Amino acid sequence: MIENDARIAIVGLGTVGSGVAEILTQHADRMRRHAGKSMQLARVVVRDASKPLRYPVDSKLVTDDIESLIEDRDIDVVAQLIGGLEPARTIMLRLLESGKDIVTANKALLAEHGPELFDRARDLGRSIAFEASVAGGVPIISNLSQCLSANQVTSLRGILNGTSNFIVSQMEEQGQSYERAVRLAQEKGFAEADPTMDVDGTDAAQKLAILAHLTCGAHVDWRKIPRVGIDQLQPSDLNWAGELGYRIKLLAVAKLNDDQHVELHVSPTLVKMGTPLAEVRGANNAISALGDMLGRAFFHGLGAGRLPTASAVVADLIDTVIGRASLTFRTLDLWSENRPPAVMADPAKTHGRFYLRFSVEDHPGVLAKITSCLGDHQISITSVIQPEHPEISDASEDTGTVSLVIMTHSAAEGQLKAALEQLNKLDVMRAKSVSMRVLD
Amino acid sequence: MIENDARIAIVGLGTVGSGVAEILTQHADRMRRHAGKSMQLARVVVRDASKPLRYPVDSKLVTDDIESLIEDRDIDVVAQLIGGLEPARTIMLRLLESGKDIVTANKALLAEHGPELFDRARDLGRSIAFEASVAGGVPIISNLSQCLSANQVTSLRGILNGTSNFIVSQMEEQGQSYERAVRLAQEKGFAEADPTMDVDGTDAAQKLAILAHLTCGAHVDWRKIPRVGIDQLQPSDLNWAGELGYRIKLLAVAKLNDDQHVELHVSPTLVKMGTPLAEVRGANNAISALGDMLGRAFFHGLGAGRLPTASAVVADLIDTVIGRASLTFRTLDLWSENRPPAVMADPAKTHGRFYLRFSVEDHPGVLAKITSCLGDHQISITSVIQPEHPEISDASEDTGTVSLVIMTHSAAEGQLKAALEQLNKLDVMRAKSVSMRVLD
Repeated sequence: MIENDARIAIVGLGTVGSGVAEILTQHADRMRRHAGKSMQLARVVVRDASKPLRYPVDSKLVTDDIESLIEDRDIDVVAQLIGGLEPARTIMLRLLESGKDIVTANKALLAEHGPELFDRARDLGRSIAFEASVAGGVPIISNLSQCLSANQVTSLRGILNGTSNFIVSQMEEQGQSYERAVRLAQEKGFAEADPTMDVDGTDAAQKLAILAHLTCGAHVDWRKIPRVGIDQLQPSDLNWAGELGYRIKLLAVAKLNDDQHVELHVSPTLVKMGTPLAEVRGANNAISALGDMLGRAFFHGLGAGRLPTASAVVADLIDTVIGRASLTFRTLDLWSENRPPAVMADPAKTHGRFYLRFSVEDHPGVLAKITSCLGDHQISITSVIQPEHPEISDASEDTGTVSLVIMTHSAAEGQLKAALEQLNKLDVMRAKSVSMRVLD
Repeated sequence: MIENDARIAIVGLGTVGSGVAEILTQHADRMRRHAGKSMQLARVVVRDASKPLRYPVDSKLVTDDIESLIEDRDIDVVAQLIGGLEPARTIMLRLLESGKDIVTANKALLAEHGPELFDRARDLGRSIAFEASVAGGVPIISNLSQCLSANQVTSLRGILNGTSNFIVSQMEEQGQSYERAVRLAQEKGFAEADPTMDVDGTDAAQKLAILAHLTCGAHVDWRKIPRVGIDQLQPSDLNWAGELGYRIKLLAVAKLNDDQHVELHVSPTLVKMGTPLAEVRGANNAISALGDMLGRAFFHGLGAGRLPTASAVVADLIDTVIGRASLTFRTLDLWSENRPPAVMADPAKTHGRFYLRFSVEDHPGVLAKITSCLGDHQISITSVIQPEHPEISDASEDTGTVSLVIMTHSAAEGQLKAALEQLNKLDVMRAKSVSMRVLD
């Protein structure tokens, strides 16, 4: 715990960094009240001090010389708010070595170098707080690591990428094309100029790796998380899902199976309308966690944005200044290179319900062929829709082609994959089949 | 922070206490992992040690002599899980004085004697943790006091009484009568034999006082919170609300107005279908908090029940054992007899939208009379429903009486009250008017 007033530095005055500077300077009284001492913004490190600042901090505090921060023994805590892996990793290591506690929002850095950084911080008696790295303003890190500490979390379902959720909401609610929804997300500042990491599931997988680490206590390599993004999502599937009473969400799922193996995936998933996750709209994030004592708890809020994310960073700064972050960091003993990684469940053996859509030639016997192939693979069917009205089919102009939508009972993913491989080879198939998970 | 293994006592082995005993003994490994040390159940104090225990703890640990606990210098933390005001208050003071930190779920005790107990704990250098006192398994205390610490929470809306929510859900979804829904709640263990404190809004008001204290930092006397329960709720109003696209929820609301005065009330409120609060069913609890930095955050989970509530108590025990609870308690500096209480907003001047239902004689000119009286009080109307079908009216058998349902724009509560007083005197009124808040 810092006994006197705390001196804080910000590295990186981008969107989040400028929000943190605003909260610390505009709400100094509140900081004093909530931390029990003053929290003084003492230094701001930017890449190029000659450029205009995103937030008008006192120019005397601003420098582009990171060494001057590393050497400043009077700085207690650093909000390190630059993205990417390098130089972020090296800077964090050097700040830790110079005796500073760290608050970060850089999920990619933690997902990639978490074990190294956390081991180093522990060796040095320092702490790393990272609430803002997942789900922006939704305080899921604290909730999993502190509030739910009496529980083993056995299942976690999250809408962790606000950009994707915004795009899918636009497509679903406004009937917009994927391309147009992406452009709107960019105009509104929800998506980067290159939105690949958001829409292909990478961002959600990195966040899921962090959450899975908190819930199962072992390191998860985000690259090993099977992931499908929303970039291939077709409007017709949104329509079909709607007909069936579902919405499609890019869902990140972690489950602990009976063998204590971890099942992880990120994929567009059908979620029953009216359930809390289905009703998460726009750029919001949400997480539903199942604790073995608590039952299901649900957390919902803005997943990104300048002040919501800055609010999470500042809560971590207050925790660090008070001394809570250090106790949490020490006790949780997260991430280490010395411990074995989490054992991943075999995807082929995991079970779930599925939505399937086939574009097939419209002639007798096709449905029988498909259902018998599914039956051969022990996949049983809950419902089939074969539209009478070709206008809601995908291929309305291609007469002779119809969509066939099938919902399955719980089936082994390996079996489903084998069945689809076989089905895709049938000569009645006019296009590759579509399959998506259905949330139970 | 307790350096060695922690020795824990439970006072009261009722529903929650037996759940805490179960978690501590059945999940000792997990406790050790999450607290970084062992958490040993060292003593259990019950009222009558000769009676059968709710959970089979080692009989050597069980006593009905509270003095033996007070004198035991080796007990570090006590989960005090007895209800009511006395002897709970005296026991807590004596435990604090004997050097023990406290975890409690007793909201009535905190709402009533919070300032005295908190001052005493502070003087003695001890801590009181109380996550389980509000909303059972929903960790709203930690979220408001830690995770949202960068924010001024300006609005808080909660479904804080699971019993009431279960009863209203049953009435709405199953069309059950109030009496039958109460009986079902009792059968399922959601309601006490005497459910008065739950259904008349007392329980929710006590919880709201605790939450309001956390958000505005000043003591709120729960008795001063205007409250209306669900005990007078009529099925016809649930039907009308449904027609208008709303559900009725017993909502506890705290708002900080521009003068920093606190507006507080507990009342059945119309909440738009599809919004998160409207979709909270059964015995669940939920809180929607608006932070000035964060925007709206929403928390949802089981509001009561043995293990969910015990899970919150155990999280507090872990926090206490780690040392986090002490830091939080010291920093937050909650409740004190030496500080002025919160300034309550004048209810007459607070604004909101309202649902009104009148049972009136069915003859020309009645609607005009009512609307002109509302107009005289500056209350403008967004919609009026006067049913053509008498079967959905309240008084279907009483020919000549119709229901008239009016939704207002935002209006001053004082004006509305004055208008209703005048309207209730009109000779066309067949029954006292019904009015309920509508959530914006």
